[in-house]
Order: sequence, then C-alpha cells, then structure tokens
Amino acid sequence: MGLYVGSTVINTADLDRAITFWTAALGYVVRDGDPTFAVLTDPRRRWSNVSLQRSDEPKRGRNRLHLDLYTADQAGEVARLEGLGAGRLPWEYEAGHDHIVLADPDGNEFCVIQSPFTQE
Amino acid sequence: MGLYVGSTVINTADLDRAITFWTAALGYVVRDGDPTFAVLTDPRRRWSNVSLQRSDEPKRGRNRLHLDLYTADQAGEVARLEGLGAGRLPWEYEAGHDHIVLADPDGNEFCVIQSPFTQE
Repeated sequence: MGLYVGSTVINTADLDRAITFWTAALGYVVRDGDPTFAVLTDPRRRWSNVSLQRSDEPKRGRNRLHLDLYTADQAGEVARLEGLGAGRLPWEYEAGHDHIVLADPDGNEFCVIQSPFTQE
Repeated sequence: MGLYVGSTVINTADLDRAITFWTAALGYVVRDGDPTFAVLTDPRRRWSNVSLQRSDEPKRGRNRLHLDLYTADQAGEVARLEGLGAGRLPWEYEAGHDHIVLADPDGNEFCVIQSPFTQE
C-alpha cells in the first residue's frame, strides 16, 4: 500500500495560537510551513503529523472529523491540556465511557481516550 | 509525552459503506466496533488509526478537519481511490501544487499529497 495517513489538517483562525497549543499538546515540532499553513511532526516519527491551516470560515455546528488522542493517563493528560488552553465541553457521557471531550482554542472538538495501547 | 494521535474519527451516514471505502483506501483492517462506531487500524501498526462514527447530522459546508494522505505515486493512488468510490472535487489549484482534493463517499474532503517521505 503506497498511501498512508500522513497528517490530519485542522483549520484555525489564529495560526500562531494553534501552533503553540498543538505543539505543546502533542510534543510535536514545526516541520515546515508558511503564513497560512504549518506541518507539525513527531520528532521521533512515531505518529502521523498534525497540520494547521489558516481559515476565516467560521465553525458551524459540530465538526465531522475529530482527533482521538490516546493515553494511559487520561486524568493527568486532560488536566495538562486544560492548562494549555483546551476547554472541557459539556457532554452526556454513558456509564463506563473511555473518552473525555475537549476543544482546542478554536473550538475544534477532540477526545482524550483512556487506552490500553501505550506506546512509550 | 504520554499522549499521541491515536485516531482520526470521521462521521458517516453509512457505516458499512465507509468501512468498505476506508479499509480499501488505506489497507487497514477493522480492529473493533459496534453498529455505530468502528476503529480501523494499520495491520502493520505504522500509522494512526482511522475511526468511523455513524452520524445522521448532515454535512454543512467544508469540513474544518481533513486527512492528508501521503504517497510517492499521486496519479496512481488518485485513480485507485476513484475506482473505490472517491469523488474528485472541483478545485482552483495553484501552480506547482502538491495535492489533489477528493471526497469520500460521504462527501468528506481529503487530499492526496505527492510526498517525498515514502515509508515502504
């Protein structure tokens, strides 16, 4: 298969703010970019990139794509992300749920998933 | 960093159709799921997962997140994806562009990027 998930691209109204948030959230570095676009990459090349694309189009309703971030320490990572500027969204969780729903500084929803698949 | 890009979740109105398309597009297999959700994974564990989530909410405007799929054979992969049911979207490309914009059977946009970062 000569095709792979290179990156998930997230639109943002404030590229610098989004770069600051997502590099800190994921421990990624800026690989390249211009004033409208940045590619963030895992310096250890374990995971797919996240790219950020400047857009003036306002967010309408819930996004049809979102990131699921996996961790073995959900509570710790959620607290860390909130400290970086993520917001916690009101959500009706079912019993036994493995996810917590946050939003990045642009309001783009993402989930933090308690995962048995640790990768350190 | 105990947090990583586990999966990109894509909403779909037809879960079975989306599973058929995305497993064939990426060479992924269904790891687990239920009638509303499926996690697709790279059997060689090189890339982040793609998850599919059933949703009746209609698509409005352009998605704020999209996948960039990287390949060393853009023309070949675009033709293959069109054969699987992807649609080619009208787009005003700039000279020297490295991407082609397609849509999955739900109309979710994604790009096929000619990339020097081959990973076979």
